[in-house]
Amino acid sequence: MREKAFVREVGPRDGIQMVKTILTAEQKLRWIRREAAAGVTHFEATSFVPAKVVPQFHDAAEVAQGTLAIPGIEAAVLVPNLKGAQRAFDVGVAKVNYVLSASEAHNQSNVRRSTDESIEDFRRIIAERDARGLKDRVVVGCGIATSFGCTIQGAVAEPRVVEIAALLAAAGAQEVSLADTVGYGNPAQVRRIFTAVSKVVGDVPLAAHFHDTRGLGIANVAAAVDVGIRRFDASLAGLGGCPFAPGATGNIDTEDTAFLLESLGFDTGIDIEKLIAVRQEVEGWLPGERFFGMVARAGLPKTYRGATIAA
Amino acid sequence: MREKAFVREVGPRDGIQMVKTILTAEQKLRWIRREAAAGVTHFEATSFVPAKVVPQFHDAAEVAQGTLAIPGIEAAVLVPNLKGAQRAFDVGVAKVNYVLSASEAHNQSNVRRSTDESIEDFRRIIAERDARGLKDRVVVGCGIATSFGCTIQGAVAEPRVVEIAALLAAAGAQEVSLADTVGYGNPAQVRRIFTAVSKVVGDVPLAAHFHDTRGLGIANVAAAVDVGIRRFDASLAGLGGCPFAPGATGNIDTEDTAFLLESLGFDTGIDIEKLIAVRQEVEGWLPGERFFGMVARAGLPKTYRGATIAA
Repeated sequence: MREKAFVREVGPRDGIQMVKTILTAEQKLRWIRREAAAGVTHFEATSFVPAKVVPQFHDAAEVAQGTLAIPGIEAAVLVPNLKGAQRAFDVGVAKVNYVLSASEAHNQSNVRRSTDESIEDFRRIIAERDARGLKDRVVVGCGIATSFGCTIQGAVAEPRVVEIAALLAAAGAQEVSLADTVGYGNPAQVRRIFTAVSKVVGDVPLAAHFHDTRGLGIANVAAAVDVGIRRFDASLAGLGGCPFAPGATGNIDTEDTAFLLESLGFDTGIDIEKLIAVRQEVEGWLPGERFFGMVARAGLPKTYRGATIAA
Repeated sequence: MREKAFVREVGPRDGIQMVKTILTAEQKLRWIRREAAAGVTHFEATSFVPAKVVPQFHDAAEVAQGTLAIPGIEAAVLVPNLKGAQRAFDVGVAKVNYVLSASEAHNQSNVRRSTDESIEDFRRIIAERDARGLKDRVVVGCGIATSFGCTIQGAVAEPRVVEIAALLAAAGAQEVSLADTVGYGNPAQVRRIFTAVSKVVGDVPLAAHFHDTRGLGIANVAAAVDVGIRRFDASLAGLGGCPFAPGATGNIDTEDTAFLLESLGFDTGIDIEKLIAVRQEVEGWLPGERFFGMVARAGLPKTYRGATIAA
């Protein structure tokens, strides 16, 4: 029995928030269904951000609703604030991810409030869920953006990241994700910060959200694996881009992340060849976008032992 | 004082052996001179393979000769056999790298002889150097290709890699490089094989030659660092391609490799911004080639502490 590791597909959320083409809700759901058929079990399916801020997510309720009909997956949605969470609760989603920034400058720039005020907002989301009697039915997680540095303010104090994680766990977060939003993290830092955070969150599972902006994304996954992390966000074809670095990649690539984890002996449940077939279809929907990722170009090694179509 | 780590630029050898454009000797030397000015101290400058096999290296003697006039660098040349080594010794190079494959199938395909016969050839090269009285003036290293797997035969037995490394060290190799020629390696395997090999080569330094064909190249560097490796081959812009996987990348990218090592706290001596400027010039020489590497697109983080033009 190989140990499980999870790759959460965030392409339909983080991956497409900056692309030029607005996909239809049916395309987004087909993408999720096809990845589910390739063995992906965890998704971030959409974002309940206002459509005037990110037009791509004008159909958030429709997409979230559609995921409820796909068996065997956990489809989370991103919520930027209490109002977004209320919309998500109305739809009946099983998981909500809130996000705030460890960098004060980044948090102010994104949501025009302090990080402490965002933590208060997170508490309100938990209270709202519980007041609706959804405590046992809706999982609420929280991502800490810029945990490894910030393009606006530069360094982010590691004790502050640890403090925020502890406050979120105490507030009732059922997952805490450390995000390298801008691709500043390196493997030594990843090990150090995840180790420190794991000591203050009790039983709350940790997840990693890495970007490959400066080429260290997959190395950071390997480093996080070393210190016990088993949940990784990734985007099909490394879709996502980086608003702060035009032409640079965004999220780590789902295929390469699954390939790394399988190569390290973990069971991701993912058939990488089927995943590459999904990538090929999505590529057709997004003309002019840059598709990243290596294993999709080169193919699996002869020595590969993970699940494949042939197996 | 930060610990040193070395990135050896193999672009003028491995990087251009498959490109469509034949560079001039002056371009190759300008590339090396400009990287030397950016702080790169180690190069594989050319290959003494017959020009009818790889036309790009028709000027091997001229390029090798030219590197002798560049102060402060160690410019090695690749030699495929004794004849190539003789030509290299004639020129007066300071370092010669021989290469053989751990995979019998790969070795037969490349040089039409068994791996054991290639080890014999290596012994003849050492003997030839010593007979010429060059023992104290020419360093001879050896790379073991397909140390992590082979596209032809699949798996390569790890004890065989260890055995070959021991034989090479006993034969007088002054550096042994383990090469993931086809991008099959993963971080766990890298740690395991380098650890095993380090036990049988005595004081002979080990180096790593990774390809990023399936996206794990930089993660493999981080893994090798963990087990004490401090010498890494890389190619500017990840130039090189892979003869077995059209469209796939070849060598790991020099800029990203230097960025990783500096981020981990090592002193590579390399000014990455200057390196990116060299990349921009080389890009102009090689129309139609695919340029890889992330940090060149995204730029260095605000938090970066390594050498920069501004520093």
